[in-house]
Amino acid sequence: MTGVVDFELVEPNLYTFGGTEAVDLVKPGQILRTTTEDCFGGGVLTVDDLPSKVCERFNPVTGPFYVAGAEPGDTLALHFAAITPARDWGMSATFPHFGALTSTHATPTLQPPLEERVWQYDLNLQAGTVRYAARRADFAVELPLDPMLGTVGVAPAGGEVRASIVPDAHGGNLDTPELRAGTTLYLGVNVPGALFAFGDGHARQGQGEVCGVGVECAMRVTVAVDLIKGVATPWPRIETDHQLISIGAARPLEDAYRISQHDLVSWVAELTGLDRLDAYQLVSQAGRAAPGNVCDPNYTMHAAIDTAVLRGAVAYGGAHRRLRGLAATLW
Amino acid sequence: MTGVVDFELVEPNLYTFGGTEAVDLVKPGQILRTTTEDCFGGGVLTVDDLPSKVCERFNPVTGPFYVAGAEPGDTLALHFAAITPARDWGMSATFPHFGALTSTHATPTLQPPLEERVWQYDLNLQAGTVRYAARRADFAVELPLDPMLGTVGVAPAGGEVRASIVPDAHGGNLDTPELRAGTTLYLGVNVPGALFAFGDGHARQGQGEVCGVGVECAMRVTVAVDLIKGVATPWPRIETDHQLISIGAARPLEDAYRISQHDLVSWVAELTGLDRLDAYQLVSQAGRAAPGNVCDPNYTMHAAIDTAVLRGAVAYGGAHRRLRGLAATLW
Amino acid sequence: MTGVVDFELVEPNLYTFGGTEAVDLVKPGQILRTTTEDCFGGGVLTVDDLPSKVCERFNPVTGPFYVAGAEPGDTLALHFAAITPARDWGMSATFPHFGALTSTHATPTLQPPLEERVWQYDLNLQAGTVRYAARRADFAVELPLDPMLGTVGVAPAGGEVRASIVPDAHGGNLDTPELRAGTTLYLGVNVPGALFAFGDGHARQGQGEVCGVGVECAMRVTVAVDLIKGVATPWPRIETDHQLISIGAARPLEDAYRISQHDLVSWVAELTGLDRLDAYQLVSQAGRAAPGNVCDPNYTMHAAIDTAVLRGAVAYGGAHRRLRGLAATLW
Amino acid sequence: MTGVVDFELVEPNLYTFGGTEAVDLVKPGQILRTTTEDCFGGGVLTVDDLPSKVCERFNPVTGPFYVAGAEPGDTLALHFAAITPARDWGMSATFPHFGALTSTHATPTLQPPLEERVWQYDLNLQAGTVRYAARRADFAVELPLDPMLGTVGVAPAGGEVRASIVPDAHGGNLDTPELRAGTTLYLGVNVPGALFAFGDGHARQGQGEVCGVGVECAMRVTVAVDLIKGVATPWPRIETDHQLISIGAARPLEDAYRISQHDLVSWVAELTGLDRLDAYQLVSQAGRAAPGNVCDPNYTMHAAIDTAVLRGAVAYGGAHRRLRGLAATLW
Repeated sequence: MTGVVDFELVEPNLYTFGGTEAVDLVKPGQILRTTTEDCFGGGVLTVDDLPSKVCERFNPVTGPFYVAGAEPGDTLALHFAAITPARDWGMSATFPHFGALTSTHATPTLQPPLEERVWQYDLNLQAGTVRYAARRADFAVELPLDPMLGTVGVAPAGGEVRASIVPDAHGGNLDTPELRAGTTLYLGVNVPGALFAFGDGHARQGQGEVCGVGVECAMRVTVAVDLIKGVATPWPRIETDHQLISIGAARPLEDAYRISQHDLVSWVAELTGLDRLDAYQLVSQAGRAAPGNVCDPNYTMHAAIDTAVLRGAVAYGGAHRRLRGLAATLW
Repeated sequence: MTGVVDFELVEPNLYTFGGTEAVDLVKPGQILRTTTEDCFGGGVLTVDDLPSKVCERFNPVTGPFYVAGAEPGDTLALHFAAITPARDWGMSATFPHFGALTSTHATPTLQPPLEERVWQYDLNLQAGTVRYAARRADFAVELPLDPMLGTVGVAPAGGEVRASIVPDAHGGNLDTPELRAGTTLYLGVNVPGALFAFGDGHARQGQGEVCGVGVECAMRVTVAVDLIKGVATPWPRIETDHQLISIGAARPLEDAYRISQHDLVSWVAELTGLDRLDAYQLVSQAGRAAPGNVCDPNYTMHAAIDTAVLRGAVAYGGAHRRLRGLAATLW
Repeated sequence: MTGVVDFELVEPNLYTFGGTEAVDLVKPGQILRTTTEDCFGGGVLTVDDLPSKVCERFNPVTGPFYVAGAEPGDTLALHFAAITPARDWGMSATFPHFGALTSTHATPTLQPPLEERVWQYDLNLQAGTVRYAARRADFAVELPLDPMLGTVGVAPAGGEVRASIVPDAHGGNLDTPELRAGTTLYLGVNVPGALFAFGDGHARQGQGEVCGVGVECAMRVTVAVDLIKGVATPWPRIETDHQLISIGAARPLEDAYRISQHDLVSWVAELTGLDRLDAYQLVSQAGRAAPGNVCDPNYTMHAAIDTAVLRGAVAYGGAHRRLRGLAATLW
Repeated sequence: MTGVVDFELVEPNLYTFGGTEAVDLVKPGQILRTTTEDCFGGGVLTVDDLPSKVCERFNPVTGPFYVAGAEPGDTLALHFAAITPARDWGMSATFPHFGALTSTHATPTLQPPLEERVWQYDLNLQAGTVRYAARRADFAVELPLDPMLGTVGVAPAGGEVRASIVPDAHGGNLDTPELRAGTTLYLGVNVPGALFAFGDGHARQGQGEVCGVGVECAMRVTVAVDLIKGVATPWPRIETDHQLISIGAARPLEDAYRISQHDLVSWVAELTGLDRLDAYQLVSQAGRAAPGNVCDPNYTMHAAIDTAVLRGAVAYGGAHRRLRGLAATLW
């Protein structure tokens, strides 16, 4: 099939967005199939493998991929047709001085770190479940499987190179459960070729990723790629079959909220022709909001609205629907 | 019916939690029926009534009610059996230097305020809809009716008296859409009689209440009251038929997140017997989070978990189920 | 001397601003002499007296005093002619979950609190020194004595009553070392009589009061009182012989910064006739800023500018100079 | 003189830390003499040159310089022997959506930007003054000349490349008035050669740089370079003849405060042998704190303590004193 690019991840060794050569080329209208390692680079195999001891680096991503024809000022559209666990287990952990309910590198206190502890989850893809088991008690419970990619981004603007653990306007470590299969992610292009990469799969995560770590899991990923020429996108946006989502990344958390709501208000105004105050009012009553992560170097929040509310407005010239159709040709 | 207290709101004149005499007495096991005015005290009747011109005070609450036997260290349980719009219209507005996408009293800039504009919503209780209509365009759309109370609280601790617009550990202006009919709100008691009050009904609001104002609406409220003796509750908690919810109120927003998640982790640990690190992990993967308001003197966020995940744990000795049963006797 | 009111503090029992009857009356133009207890109510006498064990309440203030003729919309001017340690020792401590380098009530984590430890300081009023002595090492050093009042405020607006530990627009627990003898504090009046009170003396404190506690010390206080009729003051302001200071209280800390700088820009514009953008530029280059506390329920920062820069502008009709002259009549 | 490296800045074209080749080599013990352009690249020549119109890029830095022998884990010591205005004028401005008293890219609102306005300052090096002149009034005043470098940094860790406008652990756009001539800056080395660069001179700035722009000025810079092998430095530190200073960079501002105070407490503990709680107490009473900038992508605050308080403790093996002596050989 000429429209498919299969990329084999041999050894994950990319830990930044920007600053490196592309590993492969993808053309708009093509579908990329590849895999991602987990955030531990696959190094945490049992509950006795403490990440701070067994890992040297964190959060490898697969890529970067050069998108033919992509130039600054364009928008890259990535439709995630499939995000499927590549193993039947996932790992989570508390990590010293990382997470929302501990002091951290950026919010330091004089208190010692919390205990570093690892949890192993059994995944049941048929049943669609993820099994939590306590470490210090005889307590286990099945949670819904909800695979997602924590990290998807392009090379940043201004010649910057950012660690893969950082979320910002270029995407990166957004760590939002909204980035699941079936969605289209829109990212502004900052350099020729866009240079997108992704990784950090989670079998599931809570909103805010409070301990700092999801159910980390290697993934098989199928992504349909498109390019919207001459249209800029200031912050990461997601389209699903029924909603539009804007994502903000910042600290403090209210600024991530402000960015996401401001972007959604602007987007709604543009799509409906409403003036910004009327759009502000509509989003105020119809909008949804939730945190992605409250632990990474920037926190993320998303703002969402049902497309039904927008009375038929179509985003990015129908890119989401087109890419969904393209991906359907695979099956 | 001896178990019912009907209180007639004559003229809303309460704007604080704490510092005033009770207007009526309610006994645990009784049901209170009353009404609340909207946050404008009913003074905004058309889109030409600018709140900053026609209102002298904001956010009146109905009460306070003295709960027989309530003492500091107890927990008050308020089951909202019904929250029903008392009118077939609601009002919203932008208010000068108030809201998340404007500079404010606490986040001042040198920029002039946004335009003050009022929107009128038609409510259709039969259809369960709220009709948004743009002011500067021919654009209208129906949104789901989802009535809630923005403000419910008790007298604060430490002899404090707080304006009704402030949310904090005593409840108050939580402005979360989670406070809808069918839920039970738990509040720690700080003074004899608890002295609870409520108001600020919204026909609906978006998460975060980004412009600072919901679809403001007078409400008819039916609330079943109970008291859990000798059990303290540090932050407002909500129980629904299927989930437990903790609410934090603070600035910056990540602190509201931390408070709510910390309270939920502690609550889950207590209910399940898990140690706090195992509970932290469970909430990290199974928890949900969203903002209530990002505009009030304190921001609010809630943390939620499905009770199913807790394998049969029962909160507050089954108060929610008991109060739901009590309320059912009314019908 | 008819212009002097001597008030004897018998037993400190006031822990709020607002909500209580005045203990005495002071007329504009009079001088009040009284004492304040330390923030522990005098209960910490040795390094073995852990505050969390020996104290039931914290931060008593002396007052409130009713200022004859004071009405909402006026400004109260308090010139602190003398703030003198009433004892030759002071106490400091780490307090569980309080301070800037620990998790707290509002920034909770799952980490246990830091050790609670008390330090005793010897004061030498003749030498003007405060002696720090380490608890776990043979290390002592003299620091400059710099007495101040941590807490000065009036009854809040809107019928609120606030704990004395809270700083806000009404003053309160500002905890800034700028509030030393020789300065005039301006506070907006919110209720008839203003109802001012003060306490929480520190023999000295660092900027930000990072551990949450200064060198706590009972004080003898001499304050000359005046009233500026019909002039409102939005946030606490201080005038010294050579500078104007605005104080902001908020979270996050940048909002305390914004409030203080915004107030100073507005004040400079009003005093000089500059437009606000020209005043913004002047403050941008000539202004100073520092934190008072980064530990209390609201953080505080001050913004300062030398009056020399303002080319002869006189604040509040020369109230500071007049009160300084009034106080000089005492000696 | 063999110990002096003269580098001629031809055309400023470096806008990042990291990611580029060194322009020259400096050996430890050598003195580098060069110039820096102003943050406008010299493009703002009159008050009619609006930066948003005449500038394409902002904040050029001179460098990067490769320090012979510098390896990750070492500390680079840069003693600024001289920072002298290269012109007799400086420029400041309000810039659209940049600064502390306006909505910004990261704190967006729906309000339009403030007016963009430029101010020209006359510098008098003999008199040591900077002349502010209002744009909309006949008002001028002399302020003290206090030259500093806003931006000094090394290549970041983790392969990152950061825009020169960003302050963080690698230094960068610290924008603190503490970085004046006579001080030694310590920066942790992250890559071989350290790759330091500097620029963004200010003839003076207020604390917090509230409008976002100082009195921008090209500078002649003389810097004595040394290397402390095998000693890591987590955050930028400054030593003057009489004090030690730690700098934190983060948002929200309290985290910049926490980082700087935490680093100073740790540093004091290490230098004195005090345990961290005794050091915490000492810094709590003797420490100073102030913002550098409250406008850049990260805010900065510094924490300072007088070396006299530390009873003879010597930082970094006396590097500051040694470099000051080295620089004195130039005169």
